[in-house]
Amino acid sequence: MTTRTETDSLGTIEIEQGRYWGPQTERARLLFRIGTERFPRALIRAVGLQKQAAAEANKQLGELPAEIADPIASAAAEIAEGLRDADFPLPVWQTGSGTQTNMNANEVISNRANEVLGSPLGSRKPVHPNDHVNRGQSSNDSFPTVMHIAAAEAVTARLIPALKVLHASLSRRAEQWQKVVKVGRTHLMDAVPVTLGQEFHAWASQIGHGIARVEATLPRLLQLPQGGTATGTGLNTHAAFDRVFCEKVSALTGLHFRANPDKFEGMGAHDAFVELHGALNVLAVSCNKIANDVRLLGSGPRSGFSELFIPADGLSSSIMPGKTNPTQSEALTMVAAQVMGNQTTVTVAAAQGHLELNVFKPVIIQAVLQSVTLLADATESFAHNMVDKLEPNLPRIAENLAKSLMLVTVLNPRIGYDKAVQIGKKALAENLTLRDAAEQLGFVSPADFDAWVKPEEMVSPGASLPGGGG
Amino acid sequence: MTTRTETDSLGTIEIEQGRYWGPQTERARLLFRIGTERFPRALIRAVGLQKQAAAEANKQLGELPAEIADPIASAAAEIAEGLRDADFPLPVWQTGSGTQTNMNANEVISNRANEVLGSPLGSRKPVHPNDHVNRGQSSNDSFPTVMHIAAAEAVTARLIPALKVLHASLSRRAEQWQKVVKVGRTHLMDAVPVTLGQEFHAWASQIGHGIARVEATLPRLLQLPQGGTATGTGLNTHAAFDRVFCEKVSALTGLHFRANPDKFEGMGAHDAFVELHGALNVLAVSCNKIANDVRLLGSGPRSGFSELFIPADGLSSSIMPGKTNPTQSEALTMVAAQVMGNQTTVTVAAAQGHLELNVFKPVIIQAVLQSVTLLADATESFAHNMVDKLEPNLPRIAENLAKSLMLVTVLNPRIGYDKAVQIGKKALAENLTLRDAAEQLGFVSPADFDAWVKPEEMVSPGASLPGGGG
Amino acid sequence: MTTRTETDSLGTIEIEQGRYWGPQTERARLLFRIGTERFPRALIRAVGLQKQAAAEANKQLGELPAEIADPIASAAAEIAEGLRDADFPLPVWQTGSGTQTNMNANEVISNRANEVLGSPLGSRKPVHPNDHVNRGQSSNDSFPTVMHIAAAEAVTARLIPALKVLHASLSRRAEQWQKVVKVGRTHLMDAVPVTLGQEFHAWASQIGHGIARVEATLPRLLQLPQGGTATGTGLNTHAAFDRVFCEKVSALTGLHFRANPDKFEGMGAHDAFVELHGALNVLAVSCNKIANDVRLLGSGPRSGFSELFIPADGLSSSIMPGKTNPTQSEALTMVAAQVMGNQTTVTVAAAQGHLELNVFKPVIIQAVLQSVTLLADATESFAHNMVDKLEPNLPRIAENLAKSLMLVTVLNPRIGYDKAVQIGKKALAENLTLRDAAEQLGFVSPADFDAWVKPEEMVSPGASLPGGGG
Amino acid sequence: MTTRTETDSLGTIEIEQGRYWGPQTERARLLFRIGTERFPRALIRAVGLQKQAAAEANKQLGELPAEIADPIASAAAEIAEGLRDADFPLPVWQTGSGTQTNMNANEVISNRANEVLGSPLGSRKPVHPNDHVNRGQSSNDSFPTVMHIAAAEAVTARLIPALKVLHASLSRRAEQWQKVVKVGRTHLMDAVPVTLGQEFHAWASQIGHGIARVEATLPRLLQLPQGGTATGTGLNTHAAFDRVFCEKVSALTGLHFRANPDKFEGMGAHDAFVELHGALNVLAVSCNKIANDVRLLGSGPRSGFSELFIPADGLSSSIMPGKTNPTQSEALTMVAAQVMGNQTTVTVAAAQGHLELNVFKPVIIQAVLQSVTLLADATESFAHNMVDKLEPNLPRIAENLAKSLMLVTVLNPRIGYDKAVQIGKKALAENLTLRDAAEQLGFVSPADFDAWVKPEEMVSPGASLPGGGG
Repeated sequence: MTTRTETDSLGTIEIEQGRYWGPQTERARLLFRIGTERFPRALIRAVGLQKQAAAEANKQLGELPAEIADPIASAAAEIAEGLRDADFPLPVWQTGSGTQTNMNANEVISNRANEVLGSPLGSRKPVHPNDHVNRGQSSNDSFPTVMHIAAAEAVTARLIPALKVLHASLSRRAEQWQKVVKVGRTHLMDAVPVTLGQEFHAWASQIGHGIARVEATLPRLLQLPQGGTATGTGLNTHAAFDRVFCEKVSALTGLHFRANPDKFEGMGAHDAFVELHGALNVLAVSCNKIANDVRLLGSGPRSGFSELFIPADGLSSSIMPGKTNPTQSEALTMVAAQVMGNQTTVTVAAAQGHLELNVFKPVIIQAVLQSVTLLADATESFAHNMVDKLEPNLPRIAENLAKSLMLVTVLNPRIGYDKAVQIGKKALAENLTLRDAAEQLGFVSPADFDAWVKPEEMVSPGASLPGGGG
Repeated sequence: MTTRTETDSLGTIEIEQGRYWGPQTERARLLFRIGTERFPRALIRAVGLQKQAAAEANKQLGELPAEIADPIASAAAEIAEGLRDADFPLPVWQTGSGTQTNMNANEVISNRANEVLGSPLGSRKPVHPNDHVNRGQSSNDSFPTVMHIAAAEAVTARLIPALKVLHASLSRRAEQWQKVVKVGRTHLMDAVPVTLGQEFHAWASQIGHGIARVEATLPRLLQLPQGGTATGTGLNTHAAFDRVFCEKVSALTGLHFRANPDKFEGMGAHDAFVELHGALNVLAVSCNKIANDVRLLGSGPRSGFSELFIPADGLSSSIMPGKTNPTQSEALTMVAAQVMGNQTTVTVAAAQGHLELNVFKPVIIQAVLQSVTLLADATESFAHNMVDKLEPNLPRIAENLAKSLMLVTVLNPRIGYDKAVQIGKKALAENLTLRDAAEQLGFVSPADFDAWVKPEEMVSPGASLPGGGG
Repeated sequence: MTTRTETDSLGTIEIEQGRYWGPQTERARLLFRIGTERFPRALIRAVGLQKQAAAEANKQLGELPAEIADPIASAAAEIAEGLRDADFPLPVWQTGSGTQTNMNANEVISNRANEVLGSPLGSRKPVHPNDHVNRGQSSNDSFPTVMHIAAAEAVTARLIPALKVLHASLSRRAEQWQKVVKVGRTHLMDAVPVTLGQEFHAWASQIGHGIARVEATLPRLLQLPQGGTATGTGLNTHAAFDRVFCEKVSALTGLHFRANPDKFEGMGAHDAFVELHGALNVLAVSCNKIANDVRLLGSGPRSGFSELFIPADGLSSSIMPGKTNPTQSEALTMVAAQVMGNQTTVTVAAAQGHLELNVFKPVIIQAVLQSVTLLADATESFAHNMVDKLEPNLPRIAENLAKSLMLVTVLNPRIGYDKAVQIGKKALAENLTLRDAAEQLGFVSPADFDAWVKPEEMVSPGASLPGGGG
Repeated sequence: MTTRTETDSLGTIEIEQGRYWGPQTERARLLFRIGTERFPRALIRAVGLQKQAAAEANKQLGELPAEIADPIASAAAEIAEGLRDADFPLPVWQTGSGTQTNMNANEVISNRANEVLGSPLGSRKPVHPNDHVNRGQSSNDSFPTVMHIAAAEAVTARLIPALKVLHASLSRRAEQWQKVVKVGRTHLMDAVPVTLGQEFHAWASQIGHGIARVEATLPRLLQLPQGGTATGTGLNTHAAFDRVFCEKVSALTGLHFRANPDKFEGMGAHDAFVELHGALNVLAVSCNKIANDVRLLGSGPRSGFSELFIPADGLSSSIMPGKTNPTQSEALTMVAAQVMGNQTTVTVAAAQGHLELNVFKPVIIQAVLQSVTLLADATESFAHNMVDKLEPNLPRIAENLAKSLMLVTVLNPRIGYDKAVQIGKKALAENLTLRDAAEQLGFVSPADFDAWVKPEEMVSPGASLPGGGG
C-alpha cells in the first residue's frame, strides 16, 4: 500500500494513496477497531445533503464566497449520490457525537473540492475542512441534523409506502372474505363466530393506525438542530443560518424541515428518536401479532387449525419431504424481535445524555435506521409472499364452525346464561350437538334452535336479540 | 370466619359472610395466589364507571327495564366512588382477559343491587350477574374498555397536570437565569459558554414536547371496544349499544370517548397502550436526562461541578455528618428505570395476543397505570423539592467560565481553526491563559483578544462573526 | 392526630405519637410522596437481620457494650419477625442508596430500645440511632447488605422450592406419558412423531436447568459488602467487622454469607443482582414457552390442536356459557412479561451507578424481589392447577397421528429424499393416504410401507434405518 | 449474467453460472429481500465445522461410504476456512429455523464435492445435498448445533481473552495507584477518602466477575442438540451419531462439546443463549459503569472533576480547537447500549418458541454473536486506548482532598455524629476549614484534629477508631 503523509496537530500520519479522507478519519480508523457495523447508505446520503445545504446557505448568507462554496456543494452532492461510500470507512462505534463521521465528510469534501480545483489531496487549501466545509457548523449540530434527515427520508420514502402495501393487501383480503363465517377464538379456545374478513380487517386496522402513529412523529422529526454549533448557542454561525439551511435541505429532499427553536434540546437530547422508535415498536408489536395469527390459522396441514393454506414457497425442510412452513411469518416475527430490542437500545442511549451533548448519537441512528429498513422490507415481503398468496380452507372452516359449542351463546338472551351453561356442558361431556343437548334438557325445541342458532347472523350486533337489537 | 354457601355450575363454594363478591370471584381468589399486586383505585373506579354506563345504555335502548338497570347503575356508582374496594380481592395475575375482575364486578353489583331490592346475597335475583349486569357485554370488551377509561383519566387528570407543574417550574428558572453565562459542556468536557437559563430551557422544552407526545396518543386511547362482546362481532348486544355507551361514559367522565369502529382491533390487540407507553417511555428518557444533569451540575459541594446548590432537604447520610445529596434526582431516575422496564413489559405482553383476544390485559394496564402514577408523582415532587429550591453558585460559575480554554473557539472565524488549535494546546500544556498563549504565539494581540473574546456575546449566533453574522 | 416534637439538625419536626420512627423518616415521608409501592416483608425482615447481626458483631468486637448492643439486637429481631412493619412507612422511590430505610431502621431500633430501657421515644439515648445502632456502618454498605440477604433468602427459601414443585410435576407427566405417540410440530406445522412424554420432559429439562442457573448465581449473591461503610474503605469500622458480621448473619439465616473482598464492587455496582435477574429472566423465557405450548396443545375443545384437556377450573366466560380457558397459562405468561420488563429495569438501574455508590438500590431490589415472588407463586400455581390436572385426549392424538403426512420422512433412508417429496406432495394434493400415494407412484409397495412406517418406532434414533442404525 | 437451470419439486429455477449454491438457496434469496444483515464469519465457519464433523461421524458409523463422506468433509472444511463465504448470500431474516442456511450449506457442499469428483454443478450426484450431506441430520438440529459451536468459539477464543486484557490493564492501575489518596464520591457528592487504586480495583473486580459469569454458562453452551433430527427424537439418524459427532467437532475445535441428553430442550428452546446473553448483559452493565466513571473523573480539563487526564488521541472537535474528549468511553457505552437492546431481542425471541421448534434461531445467534464481538473489541480498545494511557492529575487530587468537608466523618467515633454534623455545617456555611470550625465550636482542639484527621489513614478499616479497631 502506498501512502501519502499528512500532518495535523498531533503529528504526521500515513494515509493510503488516493483516499479522499484525511488525518482525523485515519486516526479514528486506527482507534476504533470495533465490530463490523458501518452506517447505511441512507445515513451517508444524509451526510452529503447536510454538507451541500450548509455550503449553499453559507454562500447565500455571504459567509463563504462562491468559489469556495460551489466546489464544496458539488463534492457534497457526490457523497449524497453514493459516489464516495468507499471513503467513509469508520465504524458506528466511534465518538458518541458522530464527530469522526462529520470530520470524515469535511475531509473528503475538502480533498475532493481541492482536487477539482487543482490542489493535491491533503493540501487543505483552498478549501479547508474546518474553516470552510464545516463553516458555521459543529459536529454537535451537524451530525444530529444528519440523523434527522436520514430518518425522515427513510420513514417517508421507504417505511410508509411499504406499510401501505401491507395495509392494502390485508384490506383486500378483508373485503374478499367478509362473508366467510368461521369459528372465532378467544384464549385460543373456540368462541362465537366471526368472519375471516373481520380478522383481516383487524390486522389492516392495526397497520393503518401504525401508519398514523409514525406520521404523528414527523413534526418533531422534521425539526433540525443545525445552527446550534458546539453547544446549542450558535456561536460562530450566522444568525439566519438555521433558517436558510432548512430551506436548502428542504429543497434538496422535498421534505418540510424547519429549525428547532431550541437547539439545545435537539443536541443534548434525542427524544424525537425515542418517540419515533416508540412508533416503530408499536409496529413491531402489530406485526408480531399478525404474523403469529396467520401461522396459527395456517397450522396443519392436517392436525392444526388449518383454516388458511400457507403458500407453498418452494422452500422445504431438509429432512421432512414436502413440508411447507410459514417462513414469511418467521422472518417478520424475527424482525419484530430485533425492533423490540432496538427500542431498549434507543431508550438506554437517549436516557444517558449529559448536559449540552448526548453522546450516543451513532448507536441511536443506527438502531432507528435498522428498524425502519427491516420493518419496511419485511412488511412488504409479508404482503407479497404471504398475504397475497393465502387461501382459505373452506371445507375445514365450515366443519369447524358446525361443531362449535360456543354457538350456544346466542341462546343467552332467550333462555338465560345459567341454562345455556348446562347445554354447553352436556354437549361437551356427552359429545352431543348443541341442538340435541338443548332438546334433551328441555330448554329449547329443535325448531326454535334452528330458528335462533344461525352462525351467519351471529357476526354482527343486534341480529340475534329477541327484540331485534336495533 | 362464617360463610354462606353458593352454587354455580362447578358445584358449591363457601364465601365469607357479608362479602359482596360471588362464586366466580371466590374460585379465582383460591386459584390465583400469586404475588401481592392488586389493581389500583383508578382501575376499580373505571370498572364502576363501565358498569354504570352499560346499565344506563341498556336502559335507554330498552334492553333492561328501569327496575333492573337503575339498581345496577347505583351499585356500580358506589364502586366508582370507592365504596367497594375491599370487595375486589383479586390479584393482577389472573386470567389474561381480566374476566375475573369483570365477573367480580358483576357479582358485587348483582349482590349489592339485590340487597337494596331486599334479596339476600347470593340470590342472583332479581338482578342476575350475567343476564343483567353483564347485559350486552363480555369481559372481552368490557375489561379493555375499563383499561381505556382508567388510562385516559389517569393521563388527563393526573399526569398532564403534573408535567405542567414541572414545565412551569423549569421555565421560570430558564427565564430567571437567562443571563447567567457559564461554561458549557460537551462529552462532559469544558466547551464554549452557554447560559444557565438555556440549560433549563432545554429541559423545559423536553417536558413540553413530552406533554404533546402524551396528548397525541389520546385519539386512539379514547376509542372504546365496548360493543364487541365476546369476539368483536357484537353478538348479543344492541346495534346502538357502542354509541350510547360512549355517550354515557363521556358524560360520567367529561372525556370524549367514542366507539372503536373496529372492535376486533380493540380487543385482540392493545396497540393503543403500547403507543401510550411509548410516550411515557420518552418522558422517562427526558426525566432521566434532566435529573442526571441537575445532579451533575450540583455535584460537590467542593470537588464537583458545583454550579448549582442542591437544596438541603434535611435528609443526611447515616455516617457522613451534614452531607446533602440530590435525593430527588435519585427518586426520579429510579422511576425512569421502572418506566423503561414497563415499556418492555407492555411490549412483550401486547405482542403476544392471539386471534380475537389479547390475554395479557391485566399486566398491560397495571404497567401503564404504574408508569403514569410514578411519572406524575415524581415529576411533581422533583419540581417542588428540587427545581424550585435550586440556587446557582455564582462565584463558582464565574470562576469556571473565566478559566475555560474553549473560549478560543470564537477566534476560528478570525484566525482560522488551525491556529486556534495551537493557542488552546499551548495554554493547556503550559497552564497559561488563552490571552497569554495567543500573544506569545503572535496570533492575536491582547487588545484584539479583549475585543473578540467576550463570553457574554458567545451565547447566541452571529455576534462573534467578523462580519456581524446577521 | 397527636404528635411529639423532635429536633434534628434542620430544626423541629412533628411525629405522630407512638410511632417508633424519628425525624429522618418523617422528613423522608413528606419529601417522597411517590407511588404506592412499599418494600415487601422479605426486605424489612432483612433490615432487621442486618441490624441484629451488626449489633452482635459490634458487641463481640468490643465496639459496643452489652448494655447497648443487646437492646439493639432485640429491637432488630422484632423487625425481622415482622412486629414493626407498620413503622416502615417509606416508599421505594426515595434516596437511591436506601438511606432513608436504613435511617428508618436506626430510628425505630433506637426508640424501641430506649423504650425498653425506660427512655421516652425521641430521646436518642442511651441508644443513639447513628452512634450505636448504625455503629461501624453506613447506609451505603448496610442497605446493599440487606438487599443481598433478602434476595438470597427469597431465592433459596421460596423460589427454588417452587421450581422443584413444577419440575417434579412436569417430570411425573413425562414418565407417565412416555409412550403416548403423537404428531410432532415444527414451525407449528405437522412434523414427524414424538411422544407426549418427550414434550413434558423437555419442559422439565428447562426448569431443571433453570434451577441450576439460579443456584449458579449464589456464590456472588452470598458476598456481602458490609464493612465498607461510606465509600468501601471501611472507615470507622473495626477491621474484623465484615468477617464477624457475616458469621452472625449466617447463623441467623442458615445461609453461608461471606465478606465481599472488594467492598467497593459491592457498593458502587450491583452486578450480582443483574446476574441473578438474568437467571430469573431465563426462567421467564422458559415459563413463557411452557405455558404457551400447553395452551396450544389444549386449544379447542373442537377446533384446535385439542391434544390436551385443559382442566375445568370453574372459571368461565362472562358471556360464553361453559367455556373453559387456560387461565393458569395466562397468569404465568403475564408474570413472564413482568419479569422480562424487570430485567430491563434492573439493567438500566445497575448500569448507571456512579463512582463509589450506585444510587438505584431500592428499585433494583424491588424488581428482583418482585420477580422472585411472582415466579415462585406462579410456577407453583401452574404446577398444581394446570400440569397436575391436564389429561391427554387420546382419541384425538391417535387420529392426528394417523393422518400425518410427515410419516413419509421415515422413507428417506430407503428411497431417497426426492422420491419421498413426491409421495408427500401427491398425498396432500389428492387427499390420499401416504400408503396409497406411495403405491400409486410405484415407489413403495404396501407391504414395505407397513413394515417401514411405524410411528411408534419413529420416536427414537436408529430404529428406522435400513441397517438398524446402531 | 449467465445462468444454469436447475429443477426441484417446485419447478425450474435459474442460478448464476459458477455459484455453488442450488435451488433452495436461490429461491430463498428471492423470497427474503429483507435488510442487509448477513451472518458473520464466525457463524459460517461453524456451519462448515458442523457439516465436516457430521460427515466424519457418518463415515465412522458406516452411514456413509468414504467415497461420499470424504469429499463432503473436504468441501465442508473449505467453508470452515472461509473459502466459500461468497456462496452464502442469504440474509439473517429468513426461515426461523435457519433451514435456508443449512440447505445453502448442503447445496454448496454437494456441488463442490461433485465438482471435485468430476460432476457438473447442479447434478446432485454422486453427492446428494439431502441424502448425503444432510445424512442423519435436519436443519432443526444442525442449525442450533451451529449456533452453539459459533457462540462457544467466539466466547472462548475472542471474548474471554479480551476481557482478560481489560482486567489486567485495570489491575495494573489498581496496583500502581494504590497509595493515591483522593476524595471519594457517593451520590456524586464529596465523601470520605478513597484511593485511586481502590477505584480501579473495583472496576477490575467487576470484569473479573464478568469473566467468571461467562465461563459459568459454558456447561450448557457446550451441549449440542445434534442427533435430534427433525423434532428431537433422532429419527433417521444412527443411535450413536450424537456422541460421535460431538467427538469429531471437539477434535476440530479443541472445545469439549457433548451431546445434550434432551434434544427437545436444545431445539424447541434456546435458554442456553438467553443465559449466555444474560452474562453478556452483566458485562454491558459493568462496562457502562466503568466507562462512565472514567469520563466523570476525567471531566474538565478545568471545570470538571479533573482527577484523571483523558489521553489525547488526536481526535478533536470540528469546531472547538484542541478539545480532548473521552471517545473510548463513548464507544464502549454505545456498545453497552447495543448489548442491552440485544438482551431484549434474545429474550423476546427465545420466549416465543413453539412446541418442538423455536423459530427465532437466526435472530438469536445474530444478536449473541454481535454482542460477543462488540464487547470483545470495545473492551480491548478501551484497555489499550484509554486505561493504559490515563494519568492521574495529582495536584488536583491533592487539592480536592484537602478541602473536603467529609473528612469530618472520622470524628464520629470520638465526638459523636451529632457534633460532627455541626462542624460540617458550620464549615460549609461559613466557608471555613473543618479544623477551624471544630475549634470555634469547641468540640476538637487543633492538636487533636491534626492527630485524628489523617486522610491517608482513612482508606482502610480500623485505623481511625479510638481503640484501634482491630
